[in-house]
Amino acid sequence: MAEFSHLLVIGVGLIGGSFAAAVKRAGLADRVSGIAPAESLDEALALGLVDDGVAMAPSESGAWDTSTGTSTDAGLDALIASADLIMLAAPVMRIPQWLQRIAPHLSPRAIVTDCASTKQSVLAAARRHLGAHAVRFVAGHPIAGSERSGAGAARAELFKSARLILCPAPDTDAAALARVRALWTALGAQVSELDPQRHDRLYAAVSHWPHALVFALTGALAKSDVAQDAVQAAGAGLRDTTRIGASSPSLWAEIVLDNREQVLQAAQAFQLELDAMLAALRAGDRAALEAAFAPAAEWRRRIP
Amino acid sequence: MAEFSHLLVIGVGLIGGSFAAAVKRAGLADRVSGIAPAESLDEALALGLVDDGVAMAPSESGAWDTSTGTSTDAGLDALIASADLIMLAAPVMRIPQWLQRIAPHLSPRAIVTDCASTKQSVLAAARRHLGAHAVRFVAGHPIAGSERSGAGAARAELFKSARLILCPAPDTDAAALARVRALWTALGAQVSELDPQRHDRLYAAVSHWPHALVFALTGALAKSDVAQDAVQAAGAGLRDTTRIGASSPSLWAEIVLDNREQVLQAAQAFQLELDAMLAALRAGDRAALEAAFAPAAEWRRRIP
Repeated sequence: MAEFSHLLVIGVGLIGGSFAAAVKRAGLADRVSGIAPAESLDEALALGLVDDGVAMAPSESGAWDTSTGTSTDAGLDALIASADLIMLAAPVMRIPQWLQRIAPHLSPRAIVTDCASTKQSVLAAARRHLGAHAVRFVAGHPIAGSERSGAGAARAELFKSARLILCPAPDTDAAALARVRALWTALGAQVSELDPQRHDRLYAAVSHWPHALVFALTGALAKSDVAQDAVQAAGAGLRDTTRIGASSPSLWAEIVLDNREQVLQAAQAFQLELDAMLAALRAGDRAALEAAFAPAAEWRRRIP
Repeated sequence: MAEFSHLLVIGVGLIGGSFAAAVKRAGLADRVSGIAPAESLDEALALGLVDDGVAMAPSESGAWDTSTGTSTDAGLDALIASADLIMLAAPVMRIPQWLQRIAPHLSPRAIVTDCASTKQSVLAAARRHLGAHAVRFVAGHPIAGSERSGAGAARAELFKSARLILCPAPDTDAAALARVRALWTALGAQVSELDPQRHDRLYAAVSHWPHALVFALTGALAKSDVAQDAVQAAGAGLRDTTRIGASSPSLWAEIVLDNREQVLQAAQAFQLELDAMLAALRAGDRAALEAAFAPAAEWRRRIP
């Protein structure tokens, strides 16, 4: 018998689709279903990422702020009720709505987990919407992905050797936590645990703020009078530096907003650093400029 | 007979060492000599990047602003006098001193070229120091390299398929230009020409300013309270974004200073972009934030 009898993945894009495919390939669930916008679900079915699925009603697949998850679609209710593992892989700002949507239909034995890039808001929404079932919500964050998005970019190997952070709340059910941990481990991920607040602070610094910064760097370049030449002139340095600038503006607007305070703090620390650097540059102070560059190089050389 | 009888490379680090090794391997010069600080020259000799060489006097290998190139070392003079191609691959701010140093000894047939990241200041220095011979100075910039530096990082294949920009002045000797172009082409580089001012503006935008920005991003992270965790937490995104942050602070302080006005203009355009983005974030305006991210993604997706 497989680890789980029925996995339901809500959102079958890069992350959700890869998770579904990985679980299917490893035989860790007897059945893998998907809920997604019609186009995305069709692609996931065609690629064999999921066994079956139900397309979201337009109100559920619309913009993040228009839906309140009021669908009464019986097929969708039945999928939710049948699942013993539900993976929320929708954009972060739609997760509260999905928690609200699944709550009335959850099987008592169901474990609910997610893979959003922020964890405090998701845990708060689980507490708000799942009631007593919130202890069976296990907050997770796979450190995987790329600038690509959508079911077409999904691949079963995405989480192999990837880091996977679990952010249990004090009252998270230990057995549920252990089963989610075991599942990710079986997919090849390196699982560790982190306090949700610490997680959001750390990932603001290493991911959310750098995305915003790269969007600003790349956007300024895109609007400059050398934008056209720059496409050709870009060397490996610029290609690497700006790679995440090709990420989905919509997904990242949500992530950055969801972790706003931490991102703004990182932006403030950066601005101090930049201002000191530009002052040295304006002054033509070579020693000060080199000193301003040095801590970055020292730190970066520690990353393998 | 080879293309050149005697190539002299001044500075045998990543770029100069790779150029020497590439010319040697391709048999494009009968003899390849190097001038470099003793430690660097020893490494280049041990690695076979050059056939022979003369170590710089301490005053020549010291900090950029202390030497005036007053060495009377006869071995060094003889190397300069013998060369029919001199590649200046020293840090950009030392190039004026080297032009001054080689000027009295140059063979009338010698072609002088360089591979500095900025071109206007180098051309001005050539005009200043080479006198009538300045027409045989061919300014060049290979778009190659990495965050590593030094002779140990050099490799003969570095310029294969790399872009190589030549920035001729109006009076640059056509035959000298053609020979330098042919040499780079023979090394596998894709050679194109660009106006020096346009070059400096373009590379401020795609290279010099992004380096400064990444130093600031990475430096702020290095000084933050999550610096230690961040080394482990960094995913592929941060690794790519900050890769050039491991570059030599000393080399990049010189490059950024040498192209100061253009870098400051790029910094100003970036700041406007960032300020608009942070205003949308503070206001919690998701639509404005997504709109601020979008031009970057659209532009970046055009880079292969």
